[in-house]
Amino acid sequence: MIHRPLPEAFFKPRHVAVVGASKKRGFGSGISTMLAGIGYREHLYLVNPREKEIDGLTVYRQLSDIPEDIDLAILIMPASQAPDVVGECVAKRIPAVILESAGFSETGHEGALLEEEVRKRLRGSETRVIGPNCIGIVNPHDRFITSQIDLDSLRPGNIGVIAQSGAFGNILSDWAPVQNLGFSKLVTIGNRLDVDESDLLRYFAHDEKTDVIVLYLEGVKDGRRFFEAARYANARKPILVFKGGSSSVGKSAAASHTGSLAGEDGLYEGIFRQAGVIRAASFQELFDMARVFSREPLMRGPEACIVTCSGSLGVMAADAGSALGLQFPELGPETVDKVRKLAPAWMNVRNPLDVGPSGLFIQATKAVLRDDRIHGLIALPVIPNAVVQEIVESGVDPTTLYGDPEEYRRLAPGKPFVMHTVGGAFWLDMVQKIYGDTLTIVSSAEIAAKSLWSLYRYHAFRG
Amino acid sequence: MIHRPLPEAFFKPRHVAVVGASKKRGFGSGISTMLAGIGYREHLYLVNPREKEIDGLTVYRQLSDIPEDIDLAILIMPASQAPDVVGECVAKRIPAVILESAGFSETGHEGALLEEEVRKRLRGSETRVIGPNCIGIVNPHDRFITSQIDLDSLRPGNIGVIAQSGAFGNILSDWAPVQNLGFSKLVTIGNRLDVDESDLLRYFAHDEKTDVIVLYLEGVKDGRRFFEAARYANARKPILVFKGGSSSVGKSAAASHTGSLAGEDGLYEGIFRQAGVIRAASFQELFDMARVFSREPLMRGPEACIVTCSGSLGVMAADAGSALGLQFPELGPETVDKVRKLAPAWMNVRNPLDVGPSGLFIQATKAVLRDDRIHGLIALPVIPNAVVQEIVESGVDPTTLYGDPEEYRRLAPGKPFVMHTVGGAFWLDMVQKIYGDTLTIVSSAEIAAKSLWSLYRYHAFRG
Repeated sequence: MIHRPLPEAFFKPRHVAVVGASKKRGFGSGISTMLAGIGYREHLYLVNPREKEIDGLTVYRQLSDIPEDIDLAILIMPASQAPDVVGECVAKRIPAVILESAGFSETGHEGALLEEEVRKRLRGSETRVIGPNCIGIVNPHDRFITSQIDLDSLRPGNIGVIAQSGAFGNILSDWAPVQNLGFSKLVTIGNRLDVDESDLLRYFAHDEKTDVIVLYLEGVKDGRRFFEAARYANARKPILVFKGGSSSVGKSAAASHTGSLAGEDGLYEGIFRQAGVIRAASFQELFDMARVFSREPLMRGPEACIVTCSGSLGVMAADAGSALGLQFPELGPETVDKVRKLAPAWMNVRNPLDVGPSGLFIQATKAVLRDDRIHGLIALPVIPNAVVQEIVESGVDPTTLYGDPEEYRRLAPGKPFVMHTVGGAFWLDMVQKIYGDTLTIVSSAEIAAKSLWSLYRYHAFRG
Repeated sequence: MIHRPLPEAFFKPRHVAVVGASKKRGFGSGISTMLAGIGYREHLYLVNPREKEIDGLTVYRQLSDIPEDIDLAILIMPASQAPDVVGECVAKRIPAVILESAGFSETGHEGALLEEEVRKRLRGSETRVIGPNCIGIVNPHDRFITSQIDLDSLRPGNIGVIAQSGAFGNILSDWAPVQNLGFSKLVTIGNRLDVDESDLLRYFAHDEKTDVIVLYLEGVKDGRRFFEAARYANARKPILVFKGGSSSVGKSAAASHTGSLAGEDGLYEGIFRQAGVIRAASFQELFDMARVFSREPLMRGPEACIVTCSGSLGVMAADAGSALGLQFPELGPETVDKVRKLAPAWMNVRNPLDVGPSGLFIQATKAVLRDDRIHGLIALPVIPNAVVQEIVESGVDPTTLYGDPEEYRRLAPGKPFVMHTVGGAFWLDMVQKIYGDTLTIVSSAEIAAKSLWSLYRYHAFRG
């Protein structure tokens, strides 16, 4: 199969044209103002036969009127004009086109014909098209976006995201800072009349800013192509996927959403497994695991330990981990000795290691991190909100309660350290502030277990 | 089987004794100060042979020295003294005893013998014991608690909680306000040497302040007794359960946590199903469903509709709902007509009803609420954070974007209305403020679907 690399102009263009720019409020109307605002004013070319000037910028009748070479065209005019406009893009040798408009195969047969028409105009050209029915690109590192997103709220990171849906790409971008996630790039691919998830898997496989690839899919465009691209990319970077459209209602909704054929879920399961792709069971799990993979080392064996102050949370993590294949072996004799010497009579020194209110969380955690039998740690610190509030307000350094995250990291840099907690607002905020950037916090005990398992699975897959 | 109702003294005692009260910092040392602080100073009797006075309160050598009748004794002295102290409670005819100390069957054989010894002292008496290895009671309505919990942060509500673990009960109480949940009462039962989950199911079945019963279990003490109590209670109020200890590691951790025999998971599945108990797959799901059941009407048929601005979230809800048995039928012709008249060309008027950025969320939602075919609604409003922030800051009333929650409620008071959204912090806060108390917000599209399904299942079970 021939693979054509994507032009870098999609992600960091020099000269951008917006076709369908308009003064009227409506889809895409904010894009030109937004681009001018992020530093593209001098490199922005608006096109619309019915406008003369917008925000002080000349509006051209058609693409061919623009005197400059354009390397990225953003199309937001009505769907029916797409074939002609894409034809103009080809004629002007524009390498990268983002067709954001909706009204194509997701609406039915006529829309599908329109897509086919656009595809015809592309044949034999160098022009690549992302879309239709998408919001294009979010590139926080180079501060380039192609839709109205709060760029300043985004933290540049190492997670490359491929999403099908435009609206979803938008809310993913909004949600990322809330979830303490940093994207390298996010690309929404919509109905994929040309560029698809397989192109992007290969792109991210070599993107220096990307360490983890996250996919939200409602269907794969070409199973064989996807399998090969996934295998190729997965040999370089872990791929996490959430696949929508497993039910018949979901499939039919996916078809009318992004024109996707969601296909049989079992088929996808097989493709994902063979390619070593890690599948998330929910959107929250996808994001939690992305956070884990973006920061934690891989896990070198299936042997994990749970250090907890809550027996119940420990049981939850153990149940979830065991169901997947994670092992919770007995701790090494040295570790057991070390902890037992300090432990009160009621405390069982085992794995899960439930320290309860003994105050031994730090010593237990350090002992476990030093234990050669253990390759990854799930830490479940909890404390009554009233108690921790009182302690901290009396001037005690909160890291004396549950440890210094940097020290944990130094002690075992090769072992993943995933944390989960529940409790009151004061405690939750405090944990986030102290541990949220150095270790990795996830949103449930079950996801903590699945994350470790996935870090091990990927390690084993890469061999 | 004989069922002995629990004395009300557990929940709202007049005279409280604390055995093992101490000036030394340690387990339970804050309890007497806490009780004095919540209005029990005049009705509080401390017992400890090695103390004379604590915080200006007389400390008695033994229970029998207290001149007053005691209706609740809280025991926090070392485990080894439990048989004698419980014997004194019996002698003094104290109806309610909470044994909070740990160090019993959860630590092994000797601890189990100690529990047996306590049980012997109880025989033939009217005294009931909760515990050991627990934190007892949280009763926000009557402002009574038996451990250090931030009482002022708790909102009194209609959810009755039965938890096994003490630490867990504590963090549940802390987490409840963060999760926008109100408890009627929370009881932690620990190792259950006397009072168990079955007693409490029957108690909550008749507790006027309780509308929903939530159980966190690591194992049932007596399967037959539990089944009968669950069937009895479930005929009056819905019961939601999360069961820990499905794996062998989890089972063994549960044994050393609360001395529970977690048993075969399939067995529990059968008991829960036959008794009509609703099982949550995770702790978050348990709490989300508790919120739903505490506010929403039951669902009268399996036919639901999804109204969404994000095709992707709509697909997730449809997948999860379909897998359970929820139906997403075609909308009634009137509904379709109403929406289609307003809809732009690209919008598909179907179920899930994806309104995208059409601005038709309110009209669509109202039309669906009026549709006789539909018995429950999943609403998935999303909007780019930057856009909503701009709109609201320009002075627009945010309910003009996604509707007035009171109006939705008035329009179809008999139909559950469950909402989920993702996005930026500004948007998430706004949705919580506007809709969080009138409708019910849950933490994922999947849980929204499971919640509706459970509301329908319970309706069908009750017949």
